[in-house]
Amino acid sequence: MSTVAQLLQPVESDLEQLLSDLRALIGAGHPILQAAAEHLFSAGGKRLRPGIVLLLSRALDPAGELSLRHRRLAQITEMIHTASLVHDDVVDEANTRRGVPTVHSRFNSRVAVLAGDFLFAQSSWHLANLDDLEVVKLLSRVIMDLAEGEIRQGLFRYDTGQSLETYLEKSYWKTASLMANSAKAAGVLSELERDQLNQLHSFGRQLGLAFQIVDDILDFTGSDDQLGKPAASDLASGTLTAPVIYAMEEHPSLAVLIEREFSEPDDLDQALDLVRQSQGIQRARVLAESMARESTTNLKFLPASASRDALMDLPDFVLSRLY
Amino acid sequence: MSTVAQLLQPVESDLEQLLSDLRALIGAGHPILQAAAEHLFSAGGKRLRPGIVLLLSRALDPAGELSLRHRRLAQITEMIHTASLVHDDVVDEANTRRGVPTVHSRFNSRVAVLAGDFLFAQSSWHLANLDDLEVVKLLSRVIMDLAEGEIRQGLFRYDTGQSLETYLEKSYWKTASLMANSAKAAGVLSELERDQLNQLHSFGRQLGLAFQIVDDILDFTGSDDQLGKPAASDLASGTLTAPVIYAMEEHPSLAVLIEREFSEPDDLDQALDLVRQSQGIQRARVLAESMARESTTNLKFLPASASRDALMDLPDFVLSRLY
Repeated sequence: MSTVAQLLQPVESDLEQLLSDLRALIGAGHPILQAAAEHLFSAGGKRLRPGIVLLLSRALDPAGELSLRHRRLAQITEMIHTASLVHDDVVDEANTRRGVPTVHSRFNSRVAVLAGDFLFAQSSWHLANLDDLEVVKLLSRVIMDLAEGEIRQGLFRYDTGQSLETYLEKSYWKTASLMANSAKAAGVLSELERDQLNQLHSFGRQLGLAFQIVDDILDFTGSDDQLGKPAASDLASGTLTAPVIYAMEEHPSLAVLIEREFSEPDDLDQALDLVRQSQGIQRARVLAESMARESTTNLKFLPASASRDALMDLPDFVLSRLY
Repeated sequence: MSTVAQLLQPVESDLEQLLSDLRALIGAGHPILQAAAEHLFSAGGKRLRPGIVLLLSRALDPAGELSLRHRRLAQITEMIHTASLVHDDVVDEANTRRGVPTVHSRFNSRVAVLAGDFLFAQSSWHLANLDDLEVVKLLSRVIMDLAEGEIRQGLFRYDTGQSLETYLEKSYWKTASLMANSAKAAGVLSELERDQLNQLHSFGRQLGLAFQIVDDILDFTGSDDQLGKPAASDLASGTLTAPVIYAMEEHPSLAVLIEREFSEPDDLDQALDLVRQSQGIQRARVLAESMARESTTNLKFLPASASRDALMDLPDFVLSRLY
């Protein structure tokens, strides 16, 4: 069971460089954004997404080196991810994320909109300058999927008719698309064959889905402190995740509470009890485990290296957050 | 002196098609965005930006036809422009634009952030699928310039040290970059030579700057009704435009009022009087005229057509708003 720092050890200095590059890029000459950039790109975050791109990039190079274009791809990945978080926090009116005040609560929504737009703009500019149309398409698709996912999440609020499939589709858009397409893009820059590119996409897709399912389980099993945001906030805001969708099959009365949007005094507590008493959390865990384990079967073609070993340990890390 | 409808007559049905395509594209399957899309892409707006792309595209085709890719470019241009307006209105806390409530005031800032992100995402996706790296770079540059312009505008608020050059640079980012780069992109899709591409860029740059200067003059000479927003709102919010920058040269006391951010009761009225009594508005008009007139000298290479005639009439149209 490794910590994320141990896991990302082969690219530790790459990640430090990446964060300092991003702080300089975003903050330069813009006092308003400087503070937001310091806030967003300080040490401490998991940086799992650029970490995966960096690990893959090194694992794909015969000499274990990192090209400038791969480095840039990792930056773009983190810019897109951060931009979407900053805007999601405005849309969801969230005040904390990972225990840290959000940009829109620490500054205001004006700065949050501006900072997010600036990050999206920078990412699309740097993306174009990677001079590879396929990479541009892969990452543009991510930007579209993120917007689509955020819209769908709003659309399906309190909608008890949604299936596990709807949930997985939404989770792909919101989380897995970035991991899948950035992994594939790293492969494109390394000039891999088509079927290896598809394997990288499957790897990112399955790992991303497992990651999201684990996150959604933690919303029910974690404390406010562990989560860095109020526990059960997804359910409270009507976002129905895997544990809830499974639990509704067992306890149809749960759907009634959700459909009336927890309007009676004890509704939310009762709903939480129903989810926790059900097999929902356990079934979601089994689903996350199978996806996480399967993800790395796609990486067998990678030659032996410390970076490959770290990638192979990712499922364990993702699942370890549950224990 | 032609109206915008007369001017855009050669591409009238193209523009109708474009608006209906955009309404369908943005609204489809998203009730939240449906209303915002209807609101944003209803008839009535000037649609000058996609109009120019469409006129140029037809003028560049030997048979006066419009290719699917040129049509797509015009859509992308309007998507980027609209996305940036929607987010700017959140950042500037504007309640009306052209006399119509803004998305964030009619709906709320959540919908405005979401709708803008969705439009940016769609534009970057369609852009990538034009399959031309140079076009991707030109339009990504626009997205970056728009973000840069909005940030600079905030940065230079109440800053009386800014020069006419600073103002023109900011106006390029906020307005002219989109016209310059989309005009050039139309030329790239028509496979023009390098010096003609540069001429298209100059044309859009000069026309866009003239357009912005005229807008900034109207802020002082128009009524609330004509402007569709409160008159002199730029100065009131500390955004210093050409008339003010010229007026400060004549009346140094104007800078004092601005620097104390109109904190005394009569400051704003006094400042407005100083601008209106100065040569500032007249000098800004001369600047706009020379830029507008010069812009079309770049289009002499276009073969004769109704679309070329319309493009040649653009300077008159832009300046006619002053009379």
